[in-house]
Amino acid sequence: MVRIAVVPGDGIGREVIPVAEAVLASLHPDWDFFDVEVGYARWQRTKTACTDDDISALKSADAILFGAVTTPPDPCYDSVILRIRQELDLYANLRPVKGEGFDIMVVRENSEGLYSGIEWRERDRACTVRVVSVAGSTRIGRYASRLAAARGVPLTIGNKANVLKSDILFREICSAEASRAGVSYEARYIDALALDILMHPDRYHVIVTTNIFGDILSDVAGYLVGGLGMLPSANIGDQLALFEPVHGSAPDIAGQGIANPIAAVRSAAMLLDHLGYAGEAERIEEAIQSLLHSGIKTPDLGGEATTEEFGAALLLAL
Amino acid sequence: MVRIAVVPGDGIGREVIPVAEAVLASLHPDWDFFDVEVGYARWQRTKTACTDDDISALKSADAILFGAVTTPPDPCYDSVILRIRQELDLYANLRPVKGEGFDIMVVRENSEGLYSGIEWRERDRACTVRVVSVAGSTRIGRYASRLAAARGVPLTIGNKANVLKSDILFREICSAEASRAGVSYEARYIDALALDILMHPDRYHVIVTTNIFGDILSDVAGYLVGGLGMLPSANIGDQLALFEPVHGSAPDIAGQGIANPIAAVRSAAMLLDHLGYAGEAERIEEAIQSLLHSGIKTPDLGGEATTEEFGAALLLAL
Ligand SMILES: CC(C)[C@H](C(=O)O)[C@@H](O)C(=O)O
Ligand SMILES: CC(C)[C@H](C(=O)O)[C@@H](O)C(=O)O
Repeated sequence: MVRIAVVPGDGIGREVIPVAEAVLASLHPDWDFFDVEVGYARWQRTKTACTDDDISALKSADAILFGAVTTPPDPCYDSVILRIRQELDLYANLRPVKGEGFDIMVVRENSEGLYSGIEWRERDRACTVRVVSVAGSTRIGRYASRLAAARGVPLTIGNKANVLKSDILFREICSAEASRAGVSYEARYIDALALDILMHPDRYHVIVTTNIFGDILSDVAGYLVGGLGMLPSANIGDQLALFEPVHGSAPDIAGQGIANPIAAVRSAAMLLDHLGYAGEAERIEEAIQSLLHSGIKTPDLGGEATTEEFGAALLLAL
Repeated sequence: MVRIAVVPGDGIGREVIPVAEAVLASLHPDWDFFDVEVGYARWQRTKTACTDDDISALKSADAILFGAVTTPPDPCYDSVILRIRQELDLYANLRPVKGEGFDIMVVRENSEGLYSGIEWRERDRACTVRVVSVAGSTRIGRYASRLAAARGVPLTIGNKANVLKSDILFREICSAEASRAGVSYEARYIDALALDILMHPDRYHVIVTTNIFGDILSDVAGYLVGGLGMLPSANIGDQLALFEPVHGSAPDIAGQGIANPIAAVRSAAMLLDHLGYAGEAERIEEAIQSLLHSGIKTPDLGGEATTEEFGAALLLAL
């Protein structure tokens, strides 16, 4: 039986994830959905945002549907989502951004780079090591190259090899993987690339880049679709994958029942696609489009539907 | 006597810098302008893009007017502009982006961070150390805070302290410097900030951030004014400052005499401002605006003027 770990998290995560879960359950009534509570609320109760048992529970699932977690400005609080990405080795962070005339997939390396955790403090400075490994670059380069091959598009390699010797390695390995997969590729400096996806989004298709560059680049690309509000994402490992909306827990609107669940539902669609149900993923997107066209939207889009009303209408449309 | 080192460099640098130099010379016929040749052309001749003597010559100047250098895809070629920034300790990279309803100054830390040069290759990985020093953060935080105070605007501190412990230090020090200078400040994560300057450019004024974040952020901000083509920049140290257009050597249009010299002329205006001639800098900007309004523009802006014609018209307007 397929087992889905459901992690609502904090804030609007608790409001949008039930809608996404309901969509999955309506398509697959036989799947087992089980909740895992991590995040700030849990931390306030227990001083642990995420226990080893939570990690084990997540590992026992076939896929994870994740909401959002609030990160308090407490230096002792370690980011829950970073811990999960590390412990589950979810090395490929996929961030699709689609709009009129463009369809970009940012494939962000999700396990090393500046997120290595190798940091120290000296008397008069603080250091963080950016790690680019052969193994890490190979698996992300291969993942992105295969995706580009499957889509029949070229690969763009975002890097800063004119400054960082570690990116000469990244660029070399990704180029080699692209050649192996039979896709053409182009290496671009990340600063120029971040500007050019705004100027010419139609020129980009699959972009592979290191961890923090992907973090920034995917937010910048969000501008092309009016912000992060409706964007889903996937964190993929060899064993397991986690799907989460790009938006956060949004404490400012949490508790009002007006959060837009589209990013969460699209994340559920990516989950379905990942598990082999590409047709269902497409039907979900069509249902979302039909609702938007008939004016059923949450207030952020100028509509009047509550989160629950949108969810109910979506289930009906499906 | 004021001595200005003039470095045309490669490509269109050789075409736009003469215009900028002519503007300076027309305002200050008594200044001494001397050429320093660095860059790719020199490297092809001598296998050195920039000698120790060139560095000494630059150091002897009161300010440097810099064009652009071509960086060939040769791993043995070290970036000339990076070497100059390091050796002259030009720690503050100022990148103004102004448009209808916004006036943003990105103050990029220009001497450390991921540009530390501390890199090594192990058997199965490559590492680069991101260095955030107390001294480096203090001087850039102070520079940006004073600029914000002089402009009567708040300071935004671009950082990724939720992931990088080195940025907790950067944020703390910049916050303290803002308080000392009596300006209000806000710390923002660089990914969210890169998106938000696009969504709400009017909310940002002076932004201080670490080296590579500033590199990316200033290119992204260029989108607000249609690209990098017309943007100037300054690299400021305690002894000396260098002024350069943000655009590169543009090999594709070099040699045709059609390059737009506005970014170079604006860089010359920043040089004048830096040396205490703020009124002249303003007059130059007014002259540029009047030319644009009367339709005297280079082909990139839809006009028909050559670089030289634009330059001649500008001198006349001044
Ligand atoms: C919250 C933060 C640690 C995280 C990251 O930097 O990866 C976020 O920005 C993201 O993109 O998922
Ligand atoms: C050419 C390159 C080394 C340089 C940098 O990264 O600083 C450029 O991008 C810039 O912004 O001036």
